[in-house]
Amino acid sequence: MLSVIVLGTGNLAHHLSQVFYSCPDLDLIQVYGRNKDNLKPYQVYAPTCSEPLKIKDADVYIIAVKDNAIRTVSQLVADKKGMVVHTSGAMEMKSIAHENSGVFYPLQTFSKERALNFNTIPVCIEAKQQKGLEVLEKLGASISKRVHHIDSEQRKKLHLAAVFVNNFTNYLYSVGEDICEKEKLPFDLLRPLILETAEKVQGMSTFRAQTGPARRGDSKSVEKHLELLEQSQEQILYKLLSEAIKTRYEEKL
Amino acid sequence: MLSVIVLGTGNLAHHLSQVFYSCPDLDLIQVYGRNKDNLKPYQVYAPTCSEPLKIKDADVYIIAVKDNAIRTVSQLVADKKGMVVHTSGAMEMKSIAHENSGVFYPLQTFSKERALNFNTIPVCIEAKQQKGLEVLEKLGASISKRVHHIDSEQRKKLHLAAVFVNNFTNYLYSVGEDICEKEKLPFDLLRPLILETAEKVQGMSTFRAQTGPARRGDSKSVEKHLELLEQSQEQILYKLLSEAIKTRYEEKL
Repeated sequence: MLSVIVLGTGNLAHHLSQVFYSCPDLDLIQVYGRNKDNLKPYQVYAPTCSEPLKIKDADVYIIAVKDNAIRTVSQLVADKKGMVVHTSGAMEMKSIAHENSGVFYPLQTFSKERALNFNTIPVCIEAKQQKGLEVLEKLGASISKRVHHIDSEQRKKLHLAAVFVNNFTNYLYSVGEDICEKEKLPFDLLRPLILETAEKVQGMSTFRAQTGPARRGDSKSVEKHLELLEQSQEQILYKLLSEAIKTRYEEKL
Repeated sequence: MLSVIVLGTGNLAHHLSQVFYSCPDLDLIQVYGRNKDNLKPYQVYAPTCSEPLKIKDADVYIIAVKDNAIRTVSQLVADKKGMVVHTSGAMEMKSIAHENSGVFYPLQTFSKERALNFNTIPVCIEAKQQKGLEVLEKLGASISKRVHHIDSEQRKKLHLAAVFVNNFTNYLYSVGEDICEKEKLPFDLLRPLILETAEKVQGMSTFRAQTGPARRGDSKSVEKHLELLEQSQEQILYKLLSEAIKTRYEEKL
């Protein structure tokens, strides 16, 4: 059975501790965090620890902290025999100073208030040593059906893609919410559309799923919308996205 | 029982015919379309008709055609006693030349290959006459739990908001798909993230749901991503969206 220690107390650390704890193939033996108060919720999953010198021995150390803290935290377990991995989409594997380093990156957006089923979350793994890769394969397979070998260069691009489909998409939702607010309309009017837009591409290419004035080349509707937006950042965004959609379909059709 | 005739053979006409047909409170008595071939799939729902003079009498005529054809099609039923409504988010009610006109706008994205549950789809109604509004309330309530009175000005804004959360969001998905393709990675890696992003805002404000480098003010990650994108339309888009997110959180926090 693999023994695991989670280092960190953020959203991802929380979800990982929960899933490792509930997985019969794994032994979550400790959760480490600098701040004792932040560690309290973790006591249900494993013994907690806030003193670097008391970190136990384990097969895998999972560093789930902010990108700029990864190196520092990895130094706390530099002398351990177990594997040391980070969970970041953006950071290279070499940001961990350990001979048996790796990356264990679950590609999902995590917030404490949302329960998630890890089973369908893609886990992207990378390891410096072959034996490390095998350990991560095992660890990944014990929580998810979708484990992928992804190197640092690919992962950077994947993380960039994730920013587009997650962070920027949420910003577009917020533009919709703002428009509703200004018109004193409930955002609930748009929520089913938001969900269907995401569900549609689960089994379809985005190319096929695209609709709307710009896709149809309906420049009259585009003009009307630009007028409604007046001079604003949203108007610039509307123009840019409509042009991009137009170009995409001119190119490929 | 309300008798209904659908005019049009596009995606929305298809979904509406299907739901009207299956609704016990409604009588779909005819589907009209110019092109006989396009009408064939509708024969399972109701008698079809391609000759304007043979359009029957009904309580409500639902025009589900392209925006620029609404006026022309409405003229085919100008002499009818029943109510005449269009289904467009972008067109004003007055684009229908009839004394008992109205709008019946289901706020959703429709494609033939996807089955939809109308029950949760917001239906936005507007009518020239009070008695017409009552008819549309009844019609709306027979297929959906969410019927809203929305006037032409509000509906235009709502349609604009829908373009942001639906059409533009799908475009962002396509940027993600492109990045995957270039890296020879399956788009499936991003699909769970896309779905979770949409599900998250079903019970949360977009303001709260926002994450990512721009939200955190992590300008180092933003710079790295801009480098990865090199000189491209995606780079301009990344810059603009990151700036917009930054501004949003500077303003409101």
